[in-house]
Amino acid sequence: MANIATMADNTNNKTALLVIGDEILVGRTQDVNVQFLALELAALGLPLAEVRVVPDQQDEIVAAINALRQKYKYLFTTGGIGPTHDDITADSVGMALQVPVEENAEALQRLEKHYEKFADGVNAARRRMARMPVGAKLIDNPVSAAPGFVIENVYVMAGVPKIMQAMFMGIKPALQGGPPLLSKTVRSHLFEGDLATALAAVAANNPDVALGSYPSMRDGKPLVALVARGFEAARLDAVIAELVTMLQNLGDTPEF
Amino acid sequence: MANIATMADNTNNKTALLVIGDEILVGRTQDVNVQFLALELAALGLPLAEVRVVPDQQDEIVAAINALRQKYKYLFTTGGIGPTHDDITADSVGMALQVPVEENAEALQRLEKHYEKFADGVNAARRRMARMPVGAKLIDNPVSAAPGFVIENVYVMAGVPKIMQAMFMGIKPALQGGPPLLSKTVRSHLFEGDLATALAAVAANNPDVALGSYPSMRDGKPLVALVARGFEAARLDAVIAELVTMLQNLGDTPEF
Repeated sequence: MANIATMADNTNNKTALLVIGDEILVGRTQDVNVQFLALELAALGLPLAEVRVVPDQQDEIVAAINALRQKYKYLFTTGGIGPTHDDITADSVGMALQVPVEENAEALQRLEKHYEKFADGVNAARRRMARMPVGAKLIDNPVSAAPGFVIENVYVMAGVPKIMQAMFMGIKPALQGGPPLLSKTVRSHLFEGDLATALAAVAANNPDVALGSYPSMRDGKPLVALVARGFEAARLDAVIAELVTMLQNLGDTPEF
Repeated sequence: MANIATMADNTNNKTALLVIGDEILVGRTQDVNVQFLALELAALGLPLAEVRVVPDQQDEIVAAINALRQKYKYLFTTGGIGPTHDDITADSVGMALQVPVEENAEALQRLEKHYEKFADGVNAARRRMARMPVGAKLIDNPVSAAPGFVIENVYVMAGVPKIMQAMFMGIKPALQGGPPLLSKTVRSHLFEGDLATALAAVAANNPDVALGSYPSMRDGKPLVALVARGFEAARLDAVIAELVTMLQNLGDTPEF
């Protein structure tokens, strides 16, 4: 059986996302960053293979950073880079990488420019947003100036979706991806349990393609999305053709 | 500084969620189970302290189960308990706990009853849904019969939100929680950077209360939600009162 994780092993291009923030864990905020990055990274051939969500607690953040940065090609983080006391991502990354955290001159310049018309200017709190591990490179923030940063294979971004998305668009061209992870879907009107045995046989015959089965109901009748994922369009087409034949043999008229 | 994770340490009631499924990691599906469970568990005094999302790959599922079940009071899982080849959660739980996985007689009975009017009945694929680690107790599925299960401190539920929610409502009364994790919010019209220093002082003065700061914009002007979280309503009221005074001293007229 293939799946996205084992397929990505072949390319050594698996990536991870660390979501940092109490607001997700208490249910205050519905995360939307996972899906955005999942789609972007699949298209870049850098399939997301693990996500973790941790609270605003330094030891937990440090442990997760170290586990994920060592296991995956890139680690992306979202959240915890603002001016308040609960924004501790930069210090946590420094601690994880054992790199001192200092004020970055270019980051401070950007903050000074952005806040020059504000009554308080770059006060002590805002100045914290210029702190990052020594050697980090800035990630542009076209929305609100305060930059993210990258150090080694760790990309640190904001948690606010609009800002995170803008930051990601900036770093995207420099990411070294591979062939995009493609997917093709065929839909069946059978119950999942009535196609599962035949589906398992198709999956076993095509170890280079991951097959997922996602049941739902439409007008009180079953609708099962069978999704083939892999890195070669021709192979996906072949597997989808096999699935169509399989479904027809079971008396179904599949749709796309 | 307090946060939800350290506060939960005091109660030994921290919990974790493991989301199992390629569909989240490739962006096909927007997860909504995290927020549902986060809100429910906070109300039960079982604060969610970590979430992981892993692919449909047995070694990754097993490793995550073992890491999380040993660290937290309860581990909840969603996904991977259907009839198809990519549904490998039961086998993974068995492997993680080193307990053999066999057909559960009561689960099979429920499936037979539910599927008695189906042409194919409980065929080999559906029968897989009765397999679970020996000694597991069933979690009722009032939507589509196929049960989840609990073994030791691991609660295995469906990934489809409607089914997961129904399963959770069934197990909820038996969970041993604590005082609910409460939250109170006051909103400021200041920029986050203009209140951050004063906020940090309030946070430092109240180590039993977690303070989060969540910036947004309304009609082009800043609106910052300051959220106090903790287990004692009176303490949250006191901290909110401190925040109101703090904001007034900064020239703001806070709203609720």
